[in-house]
Amino acid sequence: MPSWPDERILELFGIALPILQAPMAGPNLHELAVAVAQAGGLGSLPCALLNVETVREQVALFRQQVSAPLNLNFFCHQSPVPDPAREAAWRARLAPYYVELGLDPAMPAPAGTRAPFDDAFCRVVEDLRPEVVSFHFGLPAPALLAHVRATGAKIISSATTVAEARWLAERGCDAIIAQGFEAGGHRGVFLQGEDISTQVGTFALVPQVVDAVEVPVIAAGGIADARGIAAAFALGAAAVQIGTAYLFCPESRVPAPHRAALGSLQAEDTALTNLFTGRPARGIVNRLMREQGPLSAQAPAFPLAGGALAPLRAASEPRGSGDFMSLWAGQAARLGRPMPAGELTRRLAAEALARMSGSGR
Amino acid sequence: MPSWPDERILELFGIALPILQAPMAGPNLHELAVAVAQAGGLGSLPCALLNVETVREQVALFRQQVSAPLNLNFFCHQSPVPDPAREAAWRARLAPYYVELGLDPAMPAPAGTRAPFDDAFCRVVEDLRPEVVSFHFGLPAPALLAHVRATGAKIISSATTVAEARWLAERGCDAIIAQGFEAGGHRGVFLQGEDISTQVGTFALVPQVVDAVEVPVIAAGGIADARGIAAAFALGAAAVQIGTAYLFCPESRVPAPHRAALGSLQAEDTALTNLFTGRPARGIVNRLMREQGPLSAQAPAFPLAGGALAPLRAASEPRGSGDFMSLWAGQAARLGRPMPAGELTRRLAAEALARMSGSGR
Repeated sequence: MPSWPDERILELFGIALPILQAPMAGPNLHELAVAVAQAGGLGSLPCALLNVETVREQVALFRQQVSAPLNLNFFCHQSPVPDPAREAAWRARLAPYYVELGLDPAMPAPAGTRAPFDDAFCRVVEDLRPEVVSFHFGLPAPALLAHVRATGAKIISSATTVAEARWLAERGCDAIIAQGFEAGGHRGVFLQGEDISTQVGTFALVPQVVDAVEVPVIAAGGIADARGIAAAFALGAAAVQIGTAYLFCPESRVPAPHRAALGSLQAEDTALTNLFTGRPARGIVNRLMREQGPLSAQAPAFPLAGGALAPLRAASEPRGSGDFMSLWAGQAARLGRPMPAGELTRRLAAEALARMSGSGR
Repeated sequence: MPSWPDERILELFGIALPILQAPMAGPNLHELAVAVAQAGGLGSLPCALLNVETVREQVALFRQQVSAPLNLNFFCHQSPVPDPAREAAWRARLAPYYVELGLDPAMPAPAGTRAPFDDAFCRVVEDLRPEVVSFHFGLPAPALLAHVRATGAKIISSATTVAEARWLAERGCDAIIAQGFEAGGHRGVFLQGEDISTQVGTFALVPQVVDAVEVPVIAAGGIADARGIAAAFALGAAAVQIGTAYLFCPESRVPAPHRAALGSLQAEDTALTNLFTGRPARGIVNRLMREQGPLSAQAPAFPLAGGALAPLRAASEPRGSGDFMSLWAGQAARLGRPMPAGELTRRLAAEALARMSGSGR
């Protein structure tokens, strides 16, 4: 029976297959994590859009259904200082869409909210003892990180450059996710400020991160089938993190317009955009991105930009329109195949092993 | 003895190793092509910066030294209509640099020139009979292409998206270079106009192009060592095209500031820039790119933008400064190792074969 060329991540996390289900805030609740974990991969629960109670409830549902490691994922950005003038300019820019959809441009809109890792989330980690805790946008403050480490959780985070990988390794991460330019959703970038012109593709990033750090590297970005898994191992990765391919699964709570876009030729064109949250994230190009340009200097700071878009989404999504909502997807979306997440996990692993042993050529 | 998992490119071009030396206009004359061809790879001679006489001379030098296939590479852009107002605005923007370097901002500057494939180049191909002709920026007009085809040359071109790959396949290309976002030098983009926001990384591009076309696919972008070659084959490629790694070889006529940047930490940061020619190309971030932003809407159309920079380069390069010259490099530049090009070619192939057979793990 063929074996994986590098088993460090299997041993580190106590999992059977070197496939991490990427945390995807929104469509990804316990159902997806359970299915992947039952198949032998690492299931993840993204917490940035959840409150503390929901995290406890979702973890309980996971623990009831499977005895396997779980990854809890948190954002660790700085909460922004509200800037009323910038908010007003952003609202004014979006006003024609409000009018088009029959909305009052002056109507109240919610604050765009994605909660960073804080004392309350830290207590949840201390109570629930997830086997793995992953962070996005760097790491939390040292005192908070020490509390997480004291629980015995393995700590991982995403690097989008070699410099970020070194930074994370110096702060004791147990493994590092090399998040290539191809990846869907938010770029984990945290050292470069707003400059994303030097962001690196998976093919170039993975081997350079492998050379730069001692800990095992998890490849992410553009991996959606067995070819990608085999290629990631060839580049020196010890595991892969797969996101977009899992959005095709019935266990993903993907809104209908998003699911339709994923399954269409539209998914060939993705771009990095800051329109939906204020930070660059990769999604399928839609009307808002086309008309405003995917990157706007006027978008309020993360995560505030999304607030003014919420009424537009609420008015258009029920009509089947994806014009004003984020359609997060990576550049390999067209390789996705709709099937249950457990079956997908097992198939990806079996096909990758066959490919790597030469029998899958 | 291990064999390559896909030998279609070896058979198509009549070469021993599935490694194409990327044509790199400027540093790449016959010396580099000879060394790679002697080692069993495909040597390339880029013609965009050469006149017809020099092409004849360089090909003669190649033929004298090695009996092996040769790739002649041509650009096939439309020559731009000069726009004096835009040129003047560009000169005005650069004027402070002229003053800083002690130059008269009104001094004459050469026209930025990169010649497209035309009747004269076509006659050279008909006379010299290169075994392979590669194009960048699409394909020449059908009548010209028919002349090339009639010589018996294998015809290849670069695709930066799946749509471009389909377009090239429909027009009869014998193989397609999938040029990922990581690649150094000019993006081959030709269907997307000026929009490079949806450009695709090698990891996502290669398998999707493999799925979309029948002809063999050559992976390019971010490949600089054996890991990259093994990964490219895992993704379904039948060969690789390697550029930046060959810039480290003594056979490359790389200007001193460029060579110094390639060998330094500076090479970790590359970006797509249109400042040097008017079309997006990847290079190491230098002073001009930092101060002007790597992409400028004011840069004159390709290839005119470079004209106004020529005096700045002429005044600064002799002092060892790379501030005003293109420092083309891909995102894997830091993986480069200085050694003769023949030795590099043989080592890359041997290490990749070992890796793919499992013995190189």
